[in-house]
Amino acid sequence: MGNDKNNAVWVGFDLGATKMLAKVYNGGFNELGRNKSKTRSNQGMDAGLQRIVECIRKALDAGGVPDGNVAGIGVGSPGPLDLDKGVLLSPPNLGWDNAPLKKTLEKAFKCPAVVLNDVDAGVYGEYRQGAGRKARCVVGVFPGTGIGGGCVYEGRIIRGGNKSCFEIGHCRVLPDGPLCGCGRRGCLEAVANRLAIAAAASAAAYRGEAPYLLAQAGTDIAKIRSSVLAASIKAGDKAVERIVRMAASWIGVGISSAVNLMNPDVVVLGGGLVEAMPDIFREEVERAAREHVMPEFEKDFKVAVAELGDDAVAIGAAAWAREILTSK
Amino acid sequence: MGNDKNNAVWVGFDLGATKMLAKVYNGGFNELGRNKSKTRSNQGMDAGLQRIVECIRKALDAGGVPDGNVAGIGVGSPGPLDLDKGVLLSPPNLGWDNAPLKKTLEKAFKCPAVVLNDVDAGVYGEYRQGAGRKARCVVGVFPGTGIGGGCVYEGRIIRGGNKSCFEIGHCRVLPDGPLCGCGRRGCLEAVANRLAIAAAASAAAYRGEAPYLLAQAGTDIAKIRSSVLAASIKAGDKAVERIVRMAASWIGVGISSAVNLMNPDVVVLGGGLVEAMPDIFREEVERAAREHVMPEFEKDFKVAVAELGDDAVAIGAAAWAREILTSK
Repeated sequence: MGNDKNNAVWVGFDLGATKMLAKVYNGGFNELGRNKSKTRSNQGMDAGLQRIVECIRKALDAGGVPDGNVAGIGVGSPGPLDLDKGVLLSPPNLGWDNAPLKKTLEKAFKCPAVVLNDVDAGVYGEYRQGAGRKARCVVGVFPGTGIGGGCVYEGRIIRGGNKSCFEIGHCRVLPDGPLCGCGRRGCLEAVANRLAIAAAASAAAYRGEAPYLLAQAGTDIAKIRSSVLAASIKAGDKAVERIVRMAASWIGVGISSAVNLMNPDVVVLGGGLVEAMPDIFREEVERAAREHVMPEFEKDFKVAVAELGDDAVAIGAAAWAREILTSK
Repeated sequence: MGNDKNNAVWVGFDLGATKMLAKVYNGGFNELGRNKSKTRSNQGMDAGLQRIVECIRKALDAGGVPDGNVAGIGVGSPGPLDLDKGVLLSPPNLGWDNAPLKKTLEKAFKCPAVVLNDVDAGVYGEYRQGAGRKARCVVGVFPGTGIGGGCVYEGRIIRGGNKSCFEIGHCRVLPDGPLCGCGRRGCLEAVANRLAIAAAASAAAYRGEAPYLLAQAGTDIAKIRSSVLAASIKAGDKAVERIVRMAASWIGVGISSAVNLMNPDVVVLGGGLVEAMPDIFREEVERAAREHVMPEFEKDFKVAVAELGDDAVAIGAAAWAREILTSK
């Protein structure tokens, strides 16, 4: 499979809830073109699938590549997914139902397509071109509204049977801890995601312990975004810094279990929170992970901040598609 | 590498602190011969290495196989190990120092040898011929004095750079919990290994809550072995049953994190405690793991009791040696 002749290109696609990004690469993995569009998922699934095809077509146009020259397409998508069929089952942020992503793209571009979880694609991108380059084993953790995790072990993405796994956000760090969105208690996500941080910060603002935050965002957690948290810490809101450091240290505790199991050489941290406050997250995660990991593994890993930003998913999806489709 | 001609055989070796076992297989993986000997590690490293060679030689003799017909040897050994060099660094239960296992065997039998962690070998054995046959991903957990863990993912043993990993016994299940032998607090091993169970059971005996146990073993934890615990439960010591069930349920909590990360199809439980009380362990581990794992993964795995008993390590070591040495 895969049309890997000299002028063939590989497409990487990042399907987000609000934005989507297509990138086109030649065989040497140099970027030839890209296109960014709005997802507008509320216009329905069929319109959405059409917009995805158009977004890729525009990226090909930008690179001067005819449709027929695509060797393969990799798509990083939010879950839950049927990985083998390349179907988005019922992604909560898109509102679609059983979207036949792989089939749609294969028909439109007459080439094989591979669908993978967006976090896995991002971790694979960092492994190929970012903070995890050449690592034997990379564990990636992306704290946000969820806390996504992924693992690339000896060049392969660790995945479940027909779904994505490495769900580090749902490993239990606190027995009988706070309720998690998944329905369990004490998951890492429940104590350290963006909502947990924003809720604690809004309470600090309400109590008068975070005057800058209160002035900028009030006490509405929907307004307490990563950038406001970072600005508030910079402006001297010590309570907010303590809250963020505590969340980061929980993330380090969660990571210590993943390190005990996989003994990675690199742990990559990414996502909006980490991008806004890279030093705090890197420091606290590393400190807590080293403190809780089995002593024998304490010096085996480094903690690094992701390098590819918003491009990681599209890069990783394209590279994984090529890896999978040319090794068959 | 590897002499895989028709009459060539594969040797699997299980190096234990008190006993060692060599097994000889033909190319179709039928057992031709075996030998069991005492390790007698206190006679020193050189004598110990010599006894290992003799044990293998006796197994070859038992199978009527000349020394020169060995295609490869796999050795399952307690850690810590230098996996690449095949050296036992400083195994706590053997008292040796930098034992050159791989080199000794390669010289004695003029064939390649592969050294792997004994738990990994046991899990691989169960994957090849036991409770994890044909699974895409097997997680193995062996509660004993330690709580060993291993994972076979898509046919490969998950290992660290040059050491064994999947150290599920040192994943933290209880923040600020009891001190673990590794120096950390709240590790799974600290709340659920044989010593934790024996200590709680001896206290119950002391308090008069476990009359059968008290009569059989007193309150000395060194005398409270797996078989005594099983007999005490059978005789009606309800307090002992509660203690064992609680430990098993902690093991289920630890396993839930491994399931969230790896999404295995089978979790295999083995070792002396599980062999003595298979129903209690299978039930409680499964119940707790299902209760704590991310709901999406709740039905993806089964919990099974190991099938190969004391043979698992030697079988797995031989099969892994063949896998590694013939796929190079």
